[in-house]
Amino acid sequence: MRTVTNIYKIRMKLLYVKNQNWSEQQTLLDPYITQCKKVIDLQDYTSAEASLCLPSDKKIVSDVMAMVDKKKTSNLRYIIVVGIGGSNLGSKAIYDALYGSTDQFMPERYPKMIFLDTIDAKTYKALFAFLMKNVIKEDEFLISIISKSGGTTESLVNAEILLSDIKKSFSQWKKRCVIITDTNSKLWIEGKRLGIDILDIPKKVGGRYSIFSAVGLFPLAVAGVDIQSLMKGAETMRNNCTLHSNENISRISAIFQYVYLQKGRTTHTSFYFHPELESLGKWYRQLTGESVGKEKKGITPLVSMGSVDHHSMVQLYFGGPPDKTTEIIYSTKTEDYPIPKDSLFPSLSTTEGKNTSEVMSAIQKGTVSAYKLQNEPYFEIVLDGINEYELGSYMQYKMMEIMYLAHLMQINAFDQPQVELYKIETKKILSKKDI
Amino acid sequence: MRTVTNIYKIRMKLLYVKNQNWSEQQTLLDPYITQCKKVIDLQDYTSAEASLCLPSDKKIVSDVMAMVDKKKTSNLRYIIVVGIGGSNLGSKAIYDALYGSTDQFMPERYPKMIFLDTIDAKTYKALFAFLMKNVIKEDEFLISIISKSGGTTESLVNAEILLSDIKKSFSQWKKRCVIITDTNSKLWIEGKRLGIDILDIPKKVGGRYSIFSAVGLFPLAVAGVDIQSLMKGAETMRNNCTLHSNENISRISAIFQYVYLQKGRTTHTSFYFHPELESLGKWYRQLTGESVGKEKKGITPLVSMGSVDHHSMVQLYFGGPPDKTTEIIYSTKTEDYPIPKDSLFPSLSTTEGKNTSEVMSAIQKGTVSAYKLQNEPYFEIVLDGINEYELGSYMQYKMMEIMYLAHLMQINAFDQPQVELYKIETKKILSKKDI
Repeated sequence: MRTVTNIYKIRMKLLYVKNQNWSEQQTLLDPYITQCKKVIDLQDYTSAEASLCLPSDKKIVSDVMAMVDKKKTSNLRYIIVVGIGGSNLGSKAIYDALYGSTDQFMPERYPKMIFLDTIDAKTYKALFAFLMKNVIKEDEFLISIISKSGGTTESLVNAEILLSDIKKSFSQWKKRCVIITDTNSKLWIEGKRLGIDILDIPKKVGGRYSIFSAVGLFPLAVAGVDIQSLMKGAETMRNNCTLHSNENISRISAIFQYVYLQKGRTTHTSFYFHPELESLGKWYRQLTGESVGKEKKGITPLVSMGSVDHHSMVQLYFGGPPDKTTEIIYSTKTEDYPIPKDSLFPSLSTTEGKNTSEVMSAIQKGTVSAYKLQNEPYFEIVLDGINEYELGSYMQYKMMEIMYLAHLMQINAFDQPQVELYKIETKKILSKKDI
Repeated sequence: MRTVTNIYKIRMKLLYVKNQNWSEQQTLLDPYITQCKKVIDLQDYTSAEASLCLPSDKKIVSDVMAMVDKKKTSNLRYIIVVGIGGSNLGSKAIYDALYGSTDQFMPERYPKMIFLDTIDAKTYKALFAFLMKNVIKEDEFLISIISKSGGTTESLVNAEILLSDIKKSFSQWKKRCVIITDTNSKLWIEGKRLGIDILDIPKKVGGRYSIFSAVGLFPLAVAGVDIQSLMKGAETMRNNCTLHSNENISRISAIFQYVYLQKGRTTHTSFYFHPELESLGKWYRQLTGESVGKEKKGITPLVSMGSVDHHSMVQLYFGGPPDKTTEIIYSTKTEDYPIPKDSLFPSLSTTEGKNTSEVMSAIQKGTVSAYKLQNEPYFEIVLDGINEYELGSYMQYKMMEIMYLAHLMQINAFDQPQVELYKIETKKILSKKDI
């Protein structure tokens, strides 16, 4: 585990944006930044920005670790996370960044996380047959049922189906479950009644801001993720992002997106250069989509993966309408592999004897050069490795960026009123049928 | 395998668009549709629309099947597809729709496809250790190296690294490779020199339109996909989509996107309701991005997955700016699973005793109702199952839609000039370094 004196942090390369004069937007935003700082200083969990209190909340970490100690066993193979949206996107982002992207080739690396989000019969059939074969003892699995409201249809259906299957083989199944929900939600009450262990979520921390609550911390810690380092990264970033200076990259990024939105840049591309970060992009997609997509305003978030999307979306990015801003995210420290010196296809080779990191770095730098030459608005985020500390930093930076962006757009970053639209219609249809 | 008298086909539900008067756009488009029909009638492989000839090209199928007979063995476990962009997105779309989405839970279902697209050391390390353990005999693997130009950096690096590893253990490795490229490309020449088997790609068929050439057909057929049925679906759809009537859903969909683009709807969401179709969305993303994203024009393609994105992007779709059109894609025939009658959480349950397909169908119908109520432009595509025939139909419909859309936008659907921008910059950086 890293120590508290760790000095690594995310850098923002500002080549493109450094000469901009954003004093007007800074003036608009700075009082809100001060207000956020006050929430942190007072650890004010009653405010809309309550999630800002999480990174330095020692009690949450100790509650989570106590539950981990109770549930984690040396035999643990599978942590099944039942949750959707804010209940699983954050933990999936971190798990995939650290382990998930190569899980298919490492069947014997344990523990693994399995995510059940939407309702899908094909998945159940394959999963239950798999568990039947690979889980022999009770302490080889753990089920985490996560729903802030306690009433999410998909998660309840998944929990009912999964548990009805698990119950058949494991009499002590309740001991292998942890429910994570709001205190006194219906699910909380049902869990108490059944004697299932429960972790709660601070009332004012919404799903998409909940990664540093038990929602993210418990399943990740059980999976072996260093949550102390994750929180340390988040805390350091949080403190930088309450400054009224260019140390505050959430402020820069929020103003950047806001200024260009006024100029018709309605789409923001997060362009990641490591395949294991795709789920991180999907987490940010929800954060943007739900936080600033309302009142007919909004920014459409795109996730692009280098270099797969160089052969897919890059033509549009450079040739299409000037309606996008871009953030290029990469780590300077990655695994490396030598490209053979003796090429099989000598007439074709331009990379023999190099390392893979050099080639990917050249593609990434070539991409940045192209953005620069095209005069497309972009900035770079440089991670110092793909690890808990950097991921915690990045996610905290993004959550504060979105709060600040919503403030500039004069939008409530914390509600999602239009989600009810399809839910009402769905409930009408479900209640019509009596089967 | 299905017979040629198969009458299933994709239906388009046009509730929202049925009362539109699009005669002006039809008049603009119909001469081009006639021109496309002529390409098909003459099997004119010299035209830009050459890919339209593929679905009825018996020779391509027989060439592919001859190679499959030569290479496929009963021991085959892993088909490693080395390719990126148009060289793998189509085959990945079909493989994932049929098998890939549950591969993690079915480690012993063979043969499996493994896709190597971008350059990633972490993936190599895990993959090579995995192959070392799971591939004992030469006939347990097959490598398909796919690059239309023969000069794609990522695919050459992946091929060099993979083969240098494979060579160490398998002396007859060349027999376990098939190269798929343009006749006389440098890779073609190198392949011939080495004695590796080669399948070629018709010169005028570009990567993103190449799924029904050897690019898609060979690896899929080896993996057990019924390519005859796939082609039959494509051919039936192709013939419908040369009509000047509402049987031609490519025409409707192209005009729909074009008309709304004029009204500022610059983003198109493909909203799939089955998790196994996400890769199909990524295939369509390239098709749109590269085909119509140029000359400062373009439509930004979004892929959304129901119901995961109901908890992520739907707030933006219903609450954000009116800049999107939406296509809702689902199958009426899916696997099903019963939701237990005796609920564990009785105070919460609204779905006990129902089937999962009913719940997902209610969410899908609820979503459609919400689009209707919001007066958001959308249409529905109804698949009659997720199988080769329907996937072939859907992909052919999409390729013709994009050709028609590009024609209406007065854009060349077949080039991708701006992709060179980053390539030039990348090459400059790579050639600077002498390591």
